[in-house]
Amino acid sequence: MVIVMRADATDSQVRNVVSRIEAAGLSTCISAGQSRTLVGIVGDKRLIVTLPVEAFPGVEKVLPVTDSYKLASRQFRPTATVIDAGGVTIGGGSLAVMAGPCAVESREQLLEAAEIAREGGAQFLRGGAFKPRTSPYSFQGLERRGLELLDEARAATGLKIITEVVDVTSVEMVAAYADILQVGARNMQNFKLLQAVGQAGKPVLLKRGIAATISEWLHAAEYILSEGNYQVVLCERGIRTFEEYTRNTLDLSAVGAIKQLSHLPVIVDPSHGTGRRELVRPMALAAVAAGADGLMIEMHPNPAQALSDGPQSLDPAEFKGLMREVTALAGFLRSAAAAANG
Amino acid sequence: MVIVMRADATDSQVRNVVSRIEAAGLSTCISAGQSRTLVGIVGDKRLIVTLPVEAFPGVEKVLPVTDSYKLASRQFRPTATVIDAGGVTIGGGSLAVMAGPCAVESREQLLEAAEIAREGGAQFLRGGAFKPRTSPYSFQGLERRGLELLDEARAATGLKIITEVVDVTSVEMVAAYADILQVGARNMQNFKLLQAVGQAGKPVLLKRGIAATISEWLHAAEYILSEGNYQVVLCERGIRTFEEYTRNTLDLSAVGAIKQLSHLPVIVDPSHGTGRRELVRPMALAAVAAGADGLMIEMHPNPAQALSDGPQSLDPAEFKGLMREVTALAGFLRSAAAAANG
Amino acid sequence: MVIVMRADATDSQVRNVVSRIEAAGLSTCISAGQSRTLVGIVGDKRLIVTLPVEAFPGVEKVLPVTDSYKLASRQFRPTATVIDAGGVTIGGGSLAVMAGPCAVESREQLLEAAEIAREGGAQFLRGGAFKPRTSPYSFQGLERRGLELLDEARAATGLKIITEVVDVTSVEMVAAYADILQVGARNMQNFKLLQAVGQAGKPVLLKRGIAATISEWLHAAEYILSEGNYQVVLCERGIRTFEEYTRNTLDLSAVGAIKQLSHLPVIVDPSHGTGRRELVRPMALAAVAAGADGLMIEMHPNPAQALSDGPQSLDPAEFKGLMREVTALAGFLRSAAAAANG
Amino acid sequence: MVIVMRADATDSQVRNVVSRIEAAGLSTCISAGQSRTLVGIVGDKRLIVTLPVEAFPGVEKVLPVTDSYKLASRQFRPTATVIDAGGVTIGGGSLAVMAGPCAVESREQLLEAAEIAREGGAQFLRGGAFKPRTSPYSFQGLERRGLELLDEARAATGLKIITEVVDVTSVEMVAAYADILQVGARNMQNFKLLQAVGQAGKPVLLKRGIAATISEWLHAAEYILSEGNYQVVLCERGIRTFEEYTRNTLDLSAVGAIKQLSHLPVIVDPSHGTGRRELVRPMALAAVAAGADGLMIEMHPNPAQALSDGPQSLDPAEFKGLMREVTALAGFLRSAAAAANG
Repeated sequence: MVIVMRADATDSQVRNVVSRIEAAGLSTCISAGQSRTLVGIVGDKRLIVTLPVEAFPGVEKVLPVTDSYKLASRQFRPTATVIDAGGVTIGGGSLAVMAGPCAVESREQLLEAAEIAREGGAQFLRGGAFKPRTSPYSFQGLERRGLELLDEARAATGLKIITEVVDVTSVEMVAAYADILQVGARNMQNFKLLQAVGQAGKPVLLKRGIAATISEWLHAAEYILSEGNYQVVLCERGIRTFEEYTRNTLDLSAVGAIKQLSHLPVIVDPSHGTGRRELVRPMALAAVAAGADGLMIEMHPNPAQALSDGPQSLDPAEFKGLMREVTALAGFLRSAAAAANG
Repeated sequence: MVIVMRADATDSQVRNVVSRIEAAGLSTCISAGQSRTLVGIVGDKRLIVTLPVEAFPGVEKVLPVTDSYKLASRQFRPTATVIDAGGVTIGGGSLAVMAGPCAVESREQLLEAAEIAREGGAQFLRGGAFKPRTSPYSFQGLERRGLELLDEARAATGLKIITEVVDVTSVEMVAAYADILQVGARNMQNFKLLQAVGQAGKPVLLKRGIAATISEWLHAAEYILSEGNYQVVLCERGIRTFEEYTRNTLDLSAVGAIKQLSHLPVIVDPSHGTGRRELVRPMALAAVAAGADGLMIEMHPNPAQALSDGPQSLDPAEFKGLMREVTALAGFLRSAAAAANG
Repeated sequence: MVIVMRADATDSQVRNVVSRIEAAGLSTCISAGQSRTLVGIVGDKRLIVTLPVEAFPGVEKVLPVTDSYKLASRQFRPTATVIDAGGVTIGGGSLAVMAGPCAVESREQLLEAAEIAREGGAQFLRGGAFKPRTSPYSFQGLERRGLELLDEARAATGLKIITEVVDVTSVEMVAAYADILQVGARNMQNFKLLQAVGQAGKPVLLKRGIAATISEWLHAAEYILSEGNYQVVLCERGIRTFEEYTRNTLDLSAVGAIKQLSHLPVIVDPSHGTGRRELVRPMALAAVAAGADGLMIEMHPNPAQALSDGPQSLDPAEFKGLMREVTALAGFLRSAAAAANG
Repeated sequence: MVIVMRADATDSQVRNVVSRIEAAGLSTCISAGQSRTLVGIVGDKRLIVTLPVEAFPGVEKVLPVTDSYKLASRQFRPTATVIDAGGVTIGGGSLAVMAGPCAVESREQLLEAAEIAREGGAQFLRGGAFKPRTSPYSFQGLERRGLELLDEARAATGLKIITEVVDVTSVEMVAAYADILQVGARNMQNFKLLQAVGQAGKPVLLKRGIAATISEWLHAAEYILSEGNYQVVLCERGIRTFEEYTRNTLDLSAVGAIKQLSHLPVIVDPSHGTGRRELVRPMALAAVAAGADGLMIEMHPNPAQALSDGPQSLDPAEFKGLMREVTALAGFLRSAAAAANG
């Protein structure tokens, strides 16, 4: 962290800044420039965030040099983390696919979707039993009944289950059924929930918030890791911008950025990320080419009957066609990487 | 809601759309244009949101005509709602001021801040006992001890207390101490929390999410109102944009927009909204001129000692100076309005 | 400017960075921290921007300490600039109002609008003779004929004229008629046009680009000032965000920010800034309270006949009512400031 | 276009709206709903944009059904346009690569870069002779001398030349040297320039504005097409969002969107789109997988010497490695498509 003093800061203000920082157990280094003095802070970055340096008299602004997350950083753990979710791995070179309807609606719908997901080659069945919805009058999910249906679908197909948990009070219930706990975009900074899933003993998929920077996203992951749970998968699902053609703007650069900054695996959700069925295919292929460790795809046996997010759901034929394409592409990229390395 | 059919939609697709809508108990009206057919939907807007019309075959897109919130709308209640918080009103022409530190840090700090707030003319003391923070290593609040100190400050000064509640499990505890429950920006779409504060029997201040549209904000309020709690105050506190000079972009147009769309009172937080001490004064005055029902101001007996958000906190002299200015401005505007009407 | 070296940067990379910077005639100061070395650059900030320091081997990132504009900065000129436009001043404590239709449409429309503007108390008539429009099929302006009508309206009312110039080839023509040359938001970074108006010998009103940061806006002003023309007025007219209720998000914080950073006067356009007639009044009052030096208001003798931007135009009665309110408010604020100072 | 009348609109207001529209030569269809009347407008969409319907009395808002561009739309020309630039095609299934430095800096730099581009397999040499720069103190380009060097590099390598034109007065000069005229992001809505390049008789590459919607981008293309020039290539280069890790947010969904909406080819610039050298490779691969017709890549013989945009330039080895990867990927995708179709 570098502190930029005001052009009119006095020597005594500089000395005060330095002594406040050193009193906190940190070191400083001073650069007296032509028009401004800079004060660098050296030490444990987790200590630094506790200091209100921007309010010290004479301070113009503070420039962060490094982020204050640690456990999520690649510097902390240089090799890529591989998640084990009920025996299926995420990260480490394979392509994990999570497919299924936005919401669990009925036994028939879910079992049919699960069978299609399995036939297409997905390893995970997704489906919401608890649905956070903008309007209180929209369908809110089947709750425990939805979890029981997911359990039944797992037994029938062998797929692993990923489903969303929306508050602290239901973490235990969801964890009893799910192989991966999903924290949705709206809850990315629900810190009590992050702590709770950090203690739940199950892998966690953390979706990026709609207006979250990559740094904030990794700080949110840090909340889970700091509870001792390192089984975290990140999921890019689009950010909010001025563009209205797509529901969100899918930020595929985040895949490469996460690979630079962190050891955690990262997957992409082109369904929520675009909100348009016809854009799911090109963006799924693009995500794989960008190096994503997996995909989350919305698929419904009959999209026109879906109780939520129908417009972005693939139908069974579209889904199976896409799976053939992404599987072939992932295989080509692995061969090309092997040839380049060997 | 108007459904725009694709240019190549068939007659049977149009008929299917119409029959699906009418099966849901809604009416339709069809406009066959030169290149496209439009299907209008008429009926209870809360029913309409449950239909996946965008996924019906032949549908190009859906244009929303009206929002699906109802209880929060001005059409539902044409007169402005006035909140009663422990005997102090918000809305209805007076100016409510909530002032105090970002976080409750110590007994001395809080009692001193409360005394300054009272002297300046504020009616409410603000201060967080539970602090949602981006980094798990930042100060997270004094929790119950913070609530007890707020209670002591209320007894000492007569100010009413507003403080944040961050999860469902602590609603009851916070409601036992607070005169107004604050839901923060990060929790604006924490729907379980909205339902819980809707049942808590206390007025609620709902901050706008950092990336929330005005429509989503009013839908979030609808969650609280639909639990039977109409004592809701909205608080504009800045949205996230590309501009980096300010911490957020304070959207004062939202004040006028809320007055058009809703009967709920709306206040403004220029401290978080700008993140810069020197911009609090101009934006507080601007908020009052724009018609805000109140202000939330961060003030600290000693900003350079603050454990959070020091850079945007006013010191006691700045705060009292600002209070004189906003009070005079509010008085001028009331007189001008009275003269114009009478 | 502070250069942050990579955690794995070698000593020879640090020495290379330092020698490259010193070869350009700048000084450096080095801070060797626990995990990273920082290199501060000291010297003329206009030299610094010419160095590709981010591409030097071993460099992680570069933190700008100060902006690279100079003539537009308050440090360069501590007292507020007052513009003289044909004998009418902008800045320095008075409130300048520019009113009129979006586009000059006809002799009758313009003369009628000018008369209403004069009666309401505006000092400037605005109206576009050249209209930049998103669609090539929209009305593009009356061009020279429009300028002649503006000239006639000036003769009839005594109002000064402000009108937009959209390309280099028409600067001379527009400057022959206008008292102030307006550079529109879409052209804020049309640098050839900025240079041309910098040489045209007339005051310039520079609108903020729809996605321009405050820093970029001041850099654009610097292009004009560096041609020797210091008669520049800035105009905040809304930025593009995710919010859809308003046409743009009017960023009133920019008024206070400009007052901190620059000596140039700044006015506000609540008409384009909100795109909604009913929000013009509250945001005009808010702009005045925030300290704006003036307002630009769209007004049309008959908004429902307007060829462009009808939805945000005030009708004559609304305009005159607003003028009474903003004039009274500006008077109150002047009195309050005088009382506080004396 | 659908007009939504206010809930309190009178019958005479509805009749007035209808008669105004029909007087303009358009047809209407009315839907009288439970709470609101809707008026659909039918006819030439280029006529519709000239009407100020939002300002008609009783109108609440206007919902656009279709965009008002025509020549750029896929409905107008269902087959993909293939551009011929000096004998090299863009669109139609091949992958066009434009590579070279951000700015032409010297004869040695440019000829060296051109040779590397040729060896890597690019068909086009890029390099700016006119550079639009945020600060007036940054390097602004070699102008005519730069064009002459591009001409020499073309003669030496056989590569075609693409270079930027920044204002109307230099279109003729640039067109005398370039095979493709580039219109930069800052000039996407410089309508006079769009008209001028539309008349210049050369293919045009139109970069997306930093805050332009896809619809505005296609309207900008319409300006060029409506001058009779159909040789237009679109280039996605990132949009401005709140994310700060990348210089811009590269919106790869725009590739698929353009393929849906338009017949024009679209390429991607991952260098400006990310602003980070290490993200160019993953995003170039992702762009190809998403279906882009080409890539624009910044490459410099010695990035650390670059006078502009060094941080995002590939060095020769990185560039050649990337070219091998994207060529192999494009070949794989073509084979896969051929196998699927045949």
